[in-house]
Parts: sequence; structure tokens; C-alpha cells
Amino acid sequence: MKQNIETFIGCDCEYEKAEIVLFGAPFDSTTSYRPGARFGSSAMRHESFGLETYSPYQDKDLTDCFVFDSGDLELCFGNTEDALSDIEQHADQIMEEGKMPLLLGGEHLVTLANVRAVYKRFPEMHIIHFDAHTDLREDYLGAKLSHACVIRRCHDMLGDGRIHQFCIRSGEREEFAFAKEHTDLHPFDFEGLEQVVQQLKENNTPVYFTIDLDCLDPSVFPGTGTPEAGGVTFMQLLHAIRLVSETKIVGADLNELAPMLDQSGVSTATACKVLRELLLSLKK
Amino acid sequence: MKQNIETFIGCDCEYEKAEIVLFGAPFDSTTSYRPGARFGSSAMRHESFGLETYSPYQDKDLTDCFVFDSGDLELCFGNTEDALSDIEQHADQIMEEGKMPLLLGGEHLVTLANVRAVYKRFPEMHIIHFDAHTDLREDYLGAKLSHACVIRRCHDMLGDGRIHQFCIRSGEREEFAFAKEHTDLHPFDFEGLEQVVQQLKENNTPVYFTIDLDCLDPSVFPGTGTPEAGGVTFMQLLHAIRLVSETKIVGADLNELAPMLDQSGVSTATACKVLRELLLSLKK
Amino acid sequence: MKQNIETFIGCDCEYEKAEIVLFGAPFDSTTSYRPGARFGSSAMRHESFGLETYSPYQDKDLTDCFVFDSGDLELCFGNTEDALSDIEQHADQIMEEGKMPLLLGGEHLVTLANVRAVYKRFPEMHIIHFDAHTDLREDYLGAKLSHACVIRRCHDMLGDGRIHQFCIRSGEREEFAFAKEHTDLHPFDFEGLEQVVQQLKENNTPVYFTIDLDCLDPSVFPGTGTPEAGGVTFMQLLHAIRLVSETKIVGADLNELAPMLDQSGVSTATACKVLRELLLSLKK
Amino acid sequence: MKQNIETFIGCDCEYEKAEIVLFGAPFDSTTSYRPGARFGSSAMRHESFGLETYSPYQDKDLTDCFVFDSGDLELCFGNTEDALSDIEQHADQIMEEGKMPLLLGGEHLVTLANVRAVYKRFPEMHIIHFDAHTDLREDYLGAKLSHACVIRRCHDMLGDGRIHQFCIRSGEREEFAFAKEHTDLHPFDFEGLEQVVQQLKENNTPVYFTIDLDCLDPSVFPGTGTPEAGGVTFMQLLHAIRLVSETKIVGADLNELAPMLDQSGVSTATACKVLRELLLSLKK
Amino acid sequence: MKQNIETFIGCDCEYEKAEIVLFGAPFDSTTSYRPGARFGSSAMRHESFGLETYSPYQDKDLTDCFVFDSGDLELCFGNTEDALSDIEQHADQIMEEGKMPLLLGGEHLVTLANVRAVYKRFPEMHIIHFDAHTDLREDYLGAKLSHACVIRRCHDMLGDGRIHQFCIRSGEREEFAFAKEHTDLHPFDFEGLEQVVQQLKENNTPVYFTIDLDCLDPSVFPGTGTPEAGGVTFMQLLHAIRLVSETKIVGADLNELAPMLDQSGVSTATACKVLRELLLSLKK
Amino acid sequence: MKQNIETFIGCDCEYEKAEIVLFGAPFDSTTSYRPGARFGSSAMRHESFGLETYSPYQDKDLTDCFVFDSGDLELCFGNTEDALSDIEQHADQIMEEGKMPLLLGGEHLVTLANVRAVYKRFPEMHIIHFDAHTDLREDYLGAKLSHACVIRRCHDMLGDGRIHQFCIRSGEREEFAFAKEHTDLHPFDFEGLEQVVQQLKENNTPVYFTIDLDCLDPSVFPGTGTPEAGGVTFMQLLHAIRLVSETKIVGADLNELAPMLDQSGVSTATACKVLRELLLSLKK
Repeated sequence: MKQNIETFIGCDCEYEKAEIVLFGAPFDSTTSYRPGARFGSSAMRHESFGLETYSPYQDKDLTDCFVFDSGDLELCFGNTEDALSDIEQHADQIMEEGKMPLLLGGEHLVTLANVRAVYKRFPEMHIIHFDAHTDLREDYLGAKLSHACVIRRCHDMLGDGRIHQFCIRSGEREEFAFAKEHTDLHPFDFEGLEQVVQQLKENNTPVYFTIDLDCLDPSVFPGTGTPEAGGVTFMQLLHAIRLVSETKIVGADLNELAPMLDQSGVSTATACKVLRELLLSLKK
Repeated sequence: MKQNIETFIGCDCEYEKAEIVLFGAPFDSTTSYRPGARFGSSAMRHESFGLETYSPYQDKDLTDCFVFDSGDLELCFGNTEDALSDIEQHADQIMEEGKMPLLLGGEHLVTLANVRAVYKRFPEMHIIHFDAHTDLREDYLGAKLSHACVIRRCHDMLGDGRIHQFCIRSGEREEFAFAKEHTDLHPFDFEGLEQVVQQLKENNTPVYFTIDLDCLDPSVFPGTGTPEAGGVTFMQLLHAIRLVSETKIVGADLNELAPMLDQSGVSTATACKVLRELLLSLKK
Repeated sequence: MKQNIETFIGCDCEYEKAEIVLFGAPFDSTTSYRPGARFGSSAMRHESFGLETYSPYQDKDLTDCFVFDSGDLELCFGNTEDALSDIEQHADQIMEEGKMPLLLGGEHLVTLANVRAVYKRFPEMHIIHFDAHTDLREDYLGAKLSHACVIRRCHDMLGDGRIHQFCIRSGEREEFAFAKEHTDLHPFDFEGLEQVVQQLKENNTPVYFTIDLDCLDPSVFPGTGTPEAGGVTFMQLLHAIRLVSETKIVGADLNELAPMLDQSGVSTATACKVLRELLLSLKK
Repeated sequence: MKQNIETFIGCDCEYEKAEIVLFGAPFDSTTSYRPGARFGSSAMRHESFGLETYSPYQDKDLTDCFVFDSGDLELCFGNTEDALSDIEQHADQIMEEGKMPLLLGGEHLVTLANVRAVYKRFPEMHIIHFDAHTDLREDYLGAKLSHACVIRRCHDMLGDGRIHQFCIRSGEREEFAFAKEHTDLHPFDFEGLEQVVQQLKENNTPVYFTIDLDCLDPSVFPGTGTPEAGGVTFMQLLHAIRLVSETKIVGADLNELAPMLDQSGVSTATACKVLRELLLSLKK
Repeated sequence: MKQNIETFIGCDCEYEKAEIVLFGAPFDSTTSYRPGARFGSSAMRHESFGLETYSPYQDKDLTDCFVFDSGDLELCFGNTEDALSDIEQHADQIMEEGKMPLLLGGEHLVTLANVRAVYKRFPEMHIIHFDAHTDLREDYLGAKLSHACVIRRCHDMLGDGRIHQFCIRSGEREEFAFAKEHTDLHPFDFEGLEQVVQQLKENNTPVYFTIDLDCLDPSVFPGTGTPEAGGVTFMQLLHAIRLVSETKIVGADLNELAPMLDQSGVSTATACKVLRELLLSLKK
Repeated sequence: MKQNIETFIGCDCEYEKAEIVLFGAPFDSTTSYRPGARFGSSAMRHESFGLETYSPYQDKDLTDCFVFDSGDLELCFGNTEDALSDIEQHADQIMEEGKMPLLLGGEHLVTLANVRAVYKRFPEMHIIHFDAHTDLREDYLGAKLSHACVIRRCHDMLGDGRIHQFCIRSGEREEFAFAKEHTDLHPFDFEGLEQVVQQLKENNTPVYFTIDLDCLDPSVFPGTGTPEAGGVTFMQLLHAIRLVSETKIVGADLNELAPMLDQSGVSTATACKVLRELLLSLKK
């Protein structure tokens, strides 16, 4: 008799054969408004059994992919640097064994830890960032390690011109001013993505791909801490993901699902489908 | 047949004069994921008093239609064949008296019973099927009478080429493969509907029209057991219903509203409006 | 006039310098279907701290505007005329001191009180009305002061041809017939708005601008008493607001947010953003 | 009088034979805090099908009683006096035909209309009042017809010493002072009820019995507008109801269930059971 | 790296050493009123990580027990006999290897399958039954395999005088009449339990122990399909469980948690604690 | 110190005259299970307008007390020590001006900051602690500043025998063992409180009084992160508060209301009433 084992649907490859390793970072300790993203990764895993492994959009099936789901990390609430450090170590281990770390948040700050691990191996990498918010604050009420500062911290590492932001529709005036100088910010939707992808492909640039699910319109994704009207549709997001997957992706994450904020379950189901489509588009 | 005093709004015609008979099948016993469609028909009836009888889309009014609402059947949970048989008998009685049965689910499986009754009188009929899911499984965990198999069971009766599926965006690889061979499946939206309608009109083919409300995008209809992102809009659905109503419709149903899953009440209100527009478009 | 310390974000101008005065009318006593709009204004104020003061759509910031928030009135439930009279007096006081009253409902009936105050000073004014419903009933179960009659009561004052209605998709046959004779009704969306605005600008006509938030599609705004599928998108509404703000607006209101009906918080967040964009577009 | 086909379970006696007539007053227009009691009577009727007609507490069955359910009145929101007048007329008609009116609220103010009708026929009557609140304000923000004043309005009619209040645990200092002079107030629980009942029985005094369900502890009845911790248990209430039913009851009501405020459904189920036990205890 | 494994907290003993085997039967297909018990067992497992393994009530710790959690069975919806048969087989296997089957529902009908397996090995066994409902109907709308009939089906096997029912407060008159003749029914609470336990201990009678969690008062356990006011407290239930555990228990189950019906999470947390206390009291 | 205009009801005394200063610490960053206590203090202030200032339990009125409400602090999420330091400074300022700090959480960890401030002035003080949990862990996943360790941190300061814990019913075996050695732990309820109070009164010992609202039974207070069945009733808590208020209280707090977890609003209403009764009992 076998013990109960719960993975994201179709992600039950043996570790040795796996090309991608999923792992969850159930952390939202710096979320200043409405918390709950800590429950995102486990909700996706738990509800994924209502999803098919097959995608009619891509005519591919998760059962043909090589994905291992290593479950959720147990992270410390109340000590941000410790939590980030645990995430980074886990990503390090995955990369050492030649696999790609695909992180499920949690709040967006967890991205920083995964980026740090990937950056060590790919210092020339670019970031493609889908989000409603710029996340470019220097600090938030004094904290530099905050969900509202995560892309700014990434910029501290990567420097100018290597962060490509899309769907952005919310931020302080100073953040948009910063972006004008230092990042490649595309407001509101995916305009300009094709050209960015084209260039990254030509240069074979390694790409870290971070998706804050609140880039989606709240109509289709209400279950997130800071919903912002005026987002993209699910079909636009799928199309954009397939575009980005033409580049050389070396690390990725999906974050900011707060399942308790949408009791209809639609947000979790949609997040599951976004993950399925992302995994399938990464399969060459 | 006794009238239900709480009827769907404007559906209080005398039985003798009625052209259409509404009836509810509050059954969702085979729903494998999130139940609650059993409450759909009574919620629609109850909440319809918040709806106007007049449609500015069609410039028609339900008070000019001849619809009788016979209320909800009392169905057995735990014996699927018995429940289907009770529904079929009720549809039989309606058709014997020259009226059209318009069934309100309940889960999609109840469609099978209504189709059986209609098929007896119109063996040459086609089915037009709006749904997010193929519903083409041969069986589901061993059960052949399951919501996930209902269109497959219809195919057992009608055979190839007579089932026209629209908006389909979810299913197993095998189901899509089956559809390629045996049904007329149009993925994602209503592309191709105009031609199908044209042909059915030319041949004066009797049409059974089944609408799984999850064909709608979850943003506009979260209150359903298995919401699937990427669906059609309310306005697209209204337009498609008016198109289909140009054919010779001999039976119809509307199903899979699970009102408790959407506590904002929007899904129920939307389902009521879909039913109003369907009834009005059936009125010549 | 005393300032509310919890103001809508960025609306903390001194009263003397203020050009616009926000005030809330937490009243929904005539709501016949699902109540809760009474909590709308305070929810917007309370949740606005999750909003940025800067708009990337208009590249403007609320901190550059001159808005005073005088908080919520304390209104009598159970005596409609008294409540309306209190609202009207407050608007009178605001206008006497040369400021524009911007009323936050509450149910749509509160508009009548604000219109009465503005009308005294601008008897030649027109009304631009965004709504899902005509609100043109002569009475509702005998009550002439009802949310369902508010635009009809405005018509009693203004007469024919001076009320411009947009996004209307629900009402009784008689209401649409009345509109054909007496108002300028544009069904479903904003078609025709540009021409209306053009003409009002040419004549420098004073305009009262009333927005029932249920003009929005329920997918983006489920938190309202009578949600009506088939509404406009958030981006369409923003665009329309900016258009209308080119006219000479002398009074305005925003109403029918019922926050408890949308427990995801999206409706309240969206209402806050609509108010921010309205305030910014009024700033020349 | 026409029967409602969806009746409270077991209350389907023919009108002629009926001893008790149930009717609903879906009105909460003066509720100043959290509305929703308007949905109470129809929720009870609708959910009662989950209840058995048999009570093991009393070893009696509703099928042996003679109760007619005349459904919900259609009442005007926005004109309190009109609404009360409609309720009173309905109660008048019931009493003219020798039956007892049992009113289901709605907010507590509706009691006033039923009391007026009963008082005309039994001017010597007493009132037994179960409630968390004194309801003894002279006016509420200027309105004399308010839920917060209903027992004060009854006192206007009956005068001193004829209103017996139990379970009271909330009110302003002035209300408790008023009670000390003019009513027979028993705070917190049912202490003293037995003596009151004894005396009323000895004098064969006609009794009007009004139950505000918020007398129950919020743990067992959270679905009400103004829940007050420290209430009585369900079993204490049942016992008290059976005690009161030993007097000569000539009119009664049950009010302040706001079903949407308790999404677990427990409050509605409990209200149904309280009504069943009340009806059974009235059956001699 | 180890794959994710989720057991009920502290129940991670190796199978060989295990004395008790937990397993879930996520089935509620015959539930006629409000479904959702299908989610009970997995919710308990998932939320148990919020629980301590140590009980201050018994001064025992789950880490000292020998419990294996074999997860949830995958059961067919729509074919009741098949589902029951799968459960029975699983219980058979557990018993064959000398361990005690502890079943987590699911609706109460699943008890029948576990009882069948235990009965084969202990035909002289008695049943101790905690429930709000008699569950003694001969059939329910024609179905003999229904949650409302489960104890009647057990009586078919065991015959008179061997079923001891406690906390019962709801049922039809006929069911109570049946109980008077054939079972040992104790209404409302645990009166008489001590004597029953005494006798069973004296005779060393094998006991099957079935707990329908709706025996608890809805104030402490609202998350169940058919909540019945007037139940026992959590502390009364703990005490009763410890009493029963003095007998020779050979099989047991816990059922009817419907977690979605109580969005506060209290019902699930309480069910977890009941299970912990049951497991600890079974540990000698 | 600036007054918050939206104060807790009746707490609008001028700062100079105030004897007690209320302030909120909206912080729950270390909450490891279900967050939301950050919204507790503002919810209490906002919903208190549904409360009367008069208590029939104590026959006292808040309008006779001298309480100033300084609103909520703006605290950093993601840096626990900074947040605690801000709270401590605020408490310092209050005490310097001879007033008593009454802190509203937030999670229980905020108590530590208030205790630190009080301890500086009253190093001989004792703590009376009402809670479901021991809160005596040495660290929690490595963090020493965690809600689960707050009383242990207090013990670090005060040492043995000066912390009196009541209602405790949850914790690890090690925590209970620690308590046996170092604190005065009374499990489950208030047994022993009278003696403790007696002794503290005799010695005129200064007392810090911390109330984790989860000491209440979840039936009456479901809106908290970690509800634990088997708690005390509201009436028991009121009685205990009045007992403790006979000692020389020099600082106090109320924490762990997570209002979003109880959508019925009962938990917030109950917390408001507990605070009113605490304030009134502190008034001599």
C-alpha cells in the first residue's frame, strides 16, 4: 500500500529524469495589504486534479513532459532574509543538478531568491516581468526586502536595460520615473513584447521569466492581494507566455495567487491552467 | 400538470396554451469535482424576480410568449438510472401534448434524458452543443452515466457527424481525438456556427440545443463546478443563441449553474438572462 | 465644514483651497432587491489606502489636485424625504462656497438631492447618465422616490432632451418607450458619446455627471445590487469619463457600490480607481 | 386568500380549516446597520424542506396542525407607513375570519403593524417580547417608525406594565431607564418568565408574542443584523416558547433573520426549527 | 530530494508497524440536501498541520501512536454500489493484515462499507452511533443505499438491540417509532452512555464506533450538510469518546464534515481535533 | 499626539484629560498559519458604531470614561524588530505622560513591545494571560520573535512565577512541561483566577493584562487565525475581566481578531463588546 503523494497534476517524473523542478515558497510575510499568497502554491497543487493534462491550445500533454514537484518549503515567518536564503539554497541545489527551478509563490518577493540563484550561473541574463505593479520602490516603510521592491532589488544586481516589464498599470510617480531611466517598461499590456523576444532570441540571451498573476484582469483573477482593474485577458497571457518561451529560459516563477480571496475557486483554477500552459510551452 | 406558483418570471401561461414547458432537474449526483448544480434551476426561478421581462436586445417581452413552468422534479440521489428515467418520462408527457421541453439542470448528464425523449420523436435530429468540455469520455471511473460522458452517450444514439460542438477548450487528448473522427468540434468559440446553422436550416433538420453555461468565461460566470478560463463573452453567447434559434429547435436545455459557488449572485443573474433571451429568441 | 481624518487617498486639501468637495450619502433604504450600497462610500474611503495617488493613464497625481473629503452624512433610514433633504442641504453649502459637490452613494436615488442643489444654480444644465438601468419608472410599488425612478424625477425638473443616457441594457418596455420620446438614450455602450460631448462643449452647457457603477460589466464589478451582464469594460469607462470631463461639469456622483456583495474586494478597488480617474480628469 | 405553493413545510392546510395563517413581511427599509432581514421569510420557506415535520422535543407533527401559509406580501421600500399599513390590512383580514396571524419578518418594525391589528380586537392584551435589544427609543435619527423604536411604539398604545421583555442585553442608558419606569424588563435571559406566564394564565389575558431571533446567542444565530454576544441557547429558547404557549396567544411574530449574513445556512435552519416548535406548541 | 507527502499530522508510522490505518472515502453522491462532505477527509489531512500532536486533555501525543494514513480512495460518483464495494475491499485488506480500519467520510453512507468489512470478522459486534439524525429510513425516494438509511441497513445485518444511538434529535415520526422497537436510541445527548459502555465492557463485546460530526451543536460545527440546532458541545463529545474507547473497538469512522460550508475554517479545525482525540483515546 | 477622528465609540476624550490611550498595532507578519489579525484594530474601530456605549452588565457608560484613541500605527512588514520598536516607542510616550497604554493587535507578538515599555516602569509587575495557546516556544522555525513565542520572551524578562496563564488548551508537550516549571498555567478555563487576583490585590502588585481573544470558544469567536474548540464563553470572559480589573492594572492589550475570517461579523462585534467591558471595568 502506497502512502499519499500529492503533486501538481502530471508532474510525477522521477527526479533523475526531470528537466524542470517545481517548488513552492509559501511566504507572504512582507505583504502590506491583503495577505494570503502563502496559500497559493499548495492550493494550485491541491486543485490541479480538476485540470486535464492535455492542452488543446498547444496540442501537448503534461504526461509527455519531465517535471518533478518537490513540494513546498517550510519557511520562517518573521525573518525575511532567512526565508529568502532557504529558497535560494533550494534553487541552487536544483541548478547544480542541471535542472531548471520553477518557483511557485507566495508573494512576489520570493522571486528575488530564485533570481539570485539563477544569476550566479547566468550573470548576463535578462528578466522578463509580467505584473500590474512596477515593484520598483527603493524601500517600503523602511524595508528593502519587500514585495513592493522586488524588481528594484533585481535591478540592483542586473543594472540598466536588462529588465523588460509588461502590463504595468500601477505605481507611484517616482517608480514610473525610475523605470523611464533604468528599465524597459511597457505599460498596460504586451505591446512591444514581440520585438523584445526577437532580440533576446537573436542574442541567445538567458532569460529569467517572472509572472505576477495580477497582470491578469481582476475579472478573470480576483484572488490576489492587490487587484488592479484594466489587466490583460487569459488568452493574451497564454499568447505572451508562448512568445517568451521561444527565448532561452533558465529560471521562472509564478506568484501572488491568494486563493482565499476568491471563494469561487476560479482564480486557483486559472493559475493552474497558466502553469500547465507555461510548462507545456517550455517543453520543446 | 400542475403549475409551480413561483415560476420563472413571465412564464405563467396556462398549460393548455403553452408552447414551451420549462422544468427543472435538480440532480448532480455524478458530479465528480465541485457539486452544487442541483440548486441551479430553483435559484434561477427564485432570483428571476430581479429580472425584467423585456429585452432591449431583441425588443421582445416574455409576457408575449407562451411558456409554462412546471417546477422542479423530485429526483432520487444515489440511483442515476432512476433519476434519468423520471426526467425522460416528464419530457415524454410534454412532447405528447405537442409542447417543447426546455430542461433546466442540474448537471449536464440530465441532458441525456431529455435527448432520449426528443430522439424518440425526431430520430433524424442533430445536436448543437455549447460547452467548455468535450463530455466525450467512454466512462468516468467506470460509470458510463456521468456528466463527463453525456455527449458520448448521445453519440451512441445519433452516430457520426450529427453533433456540433462549440466553445470546447478542455478535455483529454483521447476525447479530442474521438471528436476528430466522430463529431463536428469547433474549439474555443463560435467559429463555424453560421455555416452549421445555414445547412441545418436548408435541410429543415430538427435540432436539439444543449447549453452548458460553463461555455461562458468564468469572469462572467464563476458559479459552476469546473470553471475554465478562456470562454466566450455574454454578448457572444446571446448572438450565438439567436443564430441557433433560426433552426428548427425541438428540445433544449440549460445546465451547470451552481449558485452557491458564486456568492455575488452574478452567475445566477446571468443564467436568468440567458434563459430569457433563449425563450425570446424561440418566440417567432 | 469639518474634515474627515480618514479621507479618500490624496484628498486632504484644506477646505478653503478645495475646488471639489467629496461627501458620502450612506443610504439605500429604497433599494428593493439586494441592499448594501449604504456601505459603498465608507468602503471606498477605507480601502483607498491600497491605491496609488498617481495614474499612469493620465500621468497625473491626486496630490496635485484640490479635493476635500467631508466624510459621510448621518442619514435617516425610514424617511426618504428627510434623507434627501439633508443631502441637498450639504450640497447647497458646498456650492455656496464656490466648490463642486461630488457625491458618493449609496443607492442611485441620492443623486436626486445633489441634482436638486445643482439645478437651483444651473437651471439650464444637462445630465450625462451612465447606468445599466433606465431608472425611468414613474413609481415603484407606489413610491415616487425610489432608486428605480431617479432619472424620471430628474426629467420632471429638466424636461425633454436634456438627459443623455449611456450603457443602458435593462428596463421595462414602458421605460424604453418613454426614453424614445423624452430622453437621449444610447443602449448598451458609449456609442454617440463623442457627438453629445462635442455639442455640449460648443454650447458651454453646464453638465451634471452621474455614474451608476453597474454600467460596468459584472465581471469587473460584481459588487452591486442588480448586476446586469453585458456591460462596458473598465477601460471603456475610463475613456468615457475623460471624454465627459471635457465638458463644463458642475456636479457629479458615483453610486451603487455594495461592497459586501463582492467579498474578493475587487469591486471596491475598482470603484476607488474610477473615482481617482474621475478626480484627475476634472483637474485641468 | 391564495395559497403560496412553496409553503413552509407541513403548512399546506386549506384556508377554510386553518387556525393559524403564516405570512411574510419582507421589509427592512429602516434597518440602520446591516440590512438583509427582507430575505428572512422567503429563506425560511425555501429551506424548510430540509426540516422534518416531526419534533422529538414535543412528540408532535406539523402534519397534524392546521396552518395556512399565504406567502410574502409585496411591500413598498421607501415609504414606511404604506408598508406597515399593507401588513396591518393583511392581519386584519386574517383575524376577521377568526384565525391567528403569525407574521414572519423582516425587521422588527413589522411587528408594529401586526400588533395594531391584534390590539383592535384585544385592547386588554399584553406583549411578551424576546429580544437582545430594548427597542425602546423615542426616535432614531428623527424617525419614529424605526426598528429601534418598535416596542416604544407598542408602549404608546398599551401603556405601562403590559410589556414583558426578556433576554435584553443591549440599549442606551435612557432606554433601560425608561424600561424601569414603564415596562417589565428582564435582562439577559428568561429569569422571571415562569411567574409572568403564571399570572397571565390566571387572568386569561390575551398575549401577543414577538420573538426577535437575535435573543439567541450569535454562536447559534449569527445571521442577523446586530448580533449581540451573551444570548440564550436554542434549548433555552425552546423551553421558553413552550412556557409562553400556555398563555392565550392571539398573535405572534418571528423576525430579524438575515440569511445572507450567515453563509453556512445554520441561522436559517435554526429559524425554521424555532418556527416549527412555535407552531407545534400552539397546537393544543 | 523527497517528494511531497501529506498525511494527517503525526500519522506517519510505517505500514508494517501500524495498528490503525486511516483512509478517506471522498463520496457524497447520495446526499440529498447540501453536498460537500466529499471534501471532508482531504480537508482534515490538509489543515491538520495547524494542529499540535499533543493533547493536554489526555496528556498523550500522536507521535507515540502507530497510525498509518493511506490517503483518499478514488471513488466512482454515480454508481453507489461500486463505490461502497471499493471502500469495503480497502477495509478488508486493512483487517486482513491485523490492523484497525478508521474511515474518514464523506457522507454517512460510507459507514456501511466499513461496517460490512468489520462485521464479516466480528458478527457479534455492536454499533455505537453518535448523530443528530436517526438515519433509519427504509428508503429515501426509492434508494435503499442513501445517507438517510445507513443505520437501517446496519440494522438489516445486526438485528435488534445491538445499535446504540446517541444525540439523536431529528427524524420522521416513523423513524423514532422504529427505533423504539428495534434500536437503543438515546435522544438529544449522551444520557445512558455510561451504562451501555459498562455492559459492553463486561461482555467484552466488539464495538464499531461511528461518529456523524453533526451530533455536535452547529455553533461549534456549522460545516455540515444538515446542521441541527440543539447538539452537544465539543467537551461533551470528547468525554463521550473517551468513554467509548474503554470498550473493545474494532472499527470506526468519522464523517459528514463539509468544509466549504464553513468558510471560517472552524469546523475543519474542530474535526481534526476530534480525530486526534479519538486516535489518542484508542492508544492504550 | 493626534486624535483619530474615527475613534472606537465613546473614546473621544481630549488627550490631556485621558487616563487610558488606545492604539492599534496592525501587524501580523509572523503569523505562520492564517493571517488577517492586521485588520483587527481598524475593524473594531470601524464597527464599534454598531455598539452602544452603555453596558447593562456593569451599569456604566463609556461616555463617563476618559479614553483617547490615537488610531493605528503605520508599521513595517518584513522587519519584525523595527515594528516592535515603533510600538514600544508609542507606549513609552503614553506612559511618560502618565496614561495607561491599551494596545489593540494585530497578532499576539505585539504584546511584547507593550510589555517592554510597561516593564521599564514596573519591573516588579506580573502578567495575567488569557489565551488558547501557551505561546511558550523557545523559537518557531528559527525565529525568536514570533507570535508562538511571545510569552516565552516575556518570561525571559520577568522570570519564574510571575506569569499567570488561563484558558490554555493547545501547545506542544515541551511547552506544557516548560510551564510546569516556570509559569503558573491554568488549563482550559478560569479555575484559580480568584485566588491569583486575591494575592495580587493583597500585594498591590502591578499587573499587565494580555487577552488573546482566541481564549473564547470558536463558536462565539471564529474570526481568529488558529481557532481552538473547547474555549470559554463570552459571559465567563466578562466575569474574568471584571475580576482581573480589581488588581492594579498598568498596561493591557487585546489581540488576534482576524475579521475577514468571520464574514458574519460576529467576531468583530464580540471583540468590540469585550473592549467596551474592559474599558468600563478599568473605570473606578
